[in-house]
Amino acid sequence: MSQLVRLETEPLSATAFAPFGDVIEIAGRAPRIINDGTCERYDDLAPVDVLANTGRPLISIFKAEPRALPFTVRSLERHPLSSQAFYPLDSTPFLVVVAHDGAGPWPTRLRAFRAAADQGVSYRRNTWHHALLAIGRTSRFLVVDRGGTGENCEEVTIEPPVIVSL
Amino acid sequence: MSQLVRLETEPLSATAFAPFGDVIEIAGRAPRIINDGTCERYDDLAPVDVLANTGRPLISIFKAEPRALPFTVRSLERHPLSSQAFYPLDSTPFLVVVAHDGAGPWPTRLRAFRAAADQGVSYRRNTWHHALLAIGRTSRFLVVDRGGTGENCEEVTIEPPVIVSL
Repeated sequence: MSQLVRLETEPLSATAFAPFGDVIEIAGRAPRIINDGTCERYDDLAPVDVLANTGRPLISIFKAEPRALPFTVRSLERHPLSSQAFYPLDSTPFLVVVAHDGAGPWPTRLRAFRAAADQGVSYRRNTWHHALLAIGRTSRFLVVDRGGTGENCEEVTIEPPVIVSL
Repeated sequence: MSQLVRLETEPLSATAFAPFGDVIEIAGRAPRIINDGTCERYDDLAPVDVLANTGRPLISIFKAEPRALPFTVRSLERHPLSSQAFYPLDSTPFLVVVAHDGAGPWPTRLRAFRAAADQGVSYRRNTWHHALLAIGRTSRFLVVDRGGTGENCEEVTIEPPVIVSL
């Protein structure tokens, strides 16, 4: 009989998230001053990676209902043709669940991060991650990923499921 | 003797902005429902256009001081190698000043738009526009444009200057 595993969450940071992608934030970064001194540019926080000759990068908005907590992780997805970036537009924190590559059992490969309202994430191409997990209230996110023909979403079932709460 | 020209502002809308690029907003758009019914995806609101073989698309954050109003438009810029998208992250409206292509005098080619707090813009490649014009308070913007070698910014002086206010 399988046993439910509880996954601890941790604060999102660039260092902890490095195996999975990039954290889009200005904290701890040095800006370049542009526009006659009126603007700080925090440059190149995340790449937009669309595999050559497979489609085109584009900008979308996701409007996501909050998930009930604790949340049960039953599946993950990954995008073989592109990175996928999310930035919250309604000053809301959100949950980020990702998995290390490898052959070990899913519960040992999963990580859960608490993203603050002023942090976005960009999942590296082919990184296993859960679909968007808004929390607290309905939240809009700016999303940068890919359009075009060709299948860009693989899904996997997580068995046994894993429980995540804040 | 040159005379100062006052430029009227208008509300930002997809239709009015079409000659210059895209408005990134969900109003009036039909979403696709994804993530087991928990999320509305407003897809492909703006392309990320980086001229082939000239660089790579990337995501940055700009933190801009508010401009004093009325504002004097003395220069414009354009990016021959990429589109450039801005979305406000602090629920702040902002000003958008662009110019039609053509050979006529600048004052007759300029347009000024009031972008609402839930609207972003993407300037089409080679569209003349003013540098970011935050208003009211210091505002962060998510920016999607380009990195790489090669010159991607042309500037032009607007003479006589043009005055814009809300």
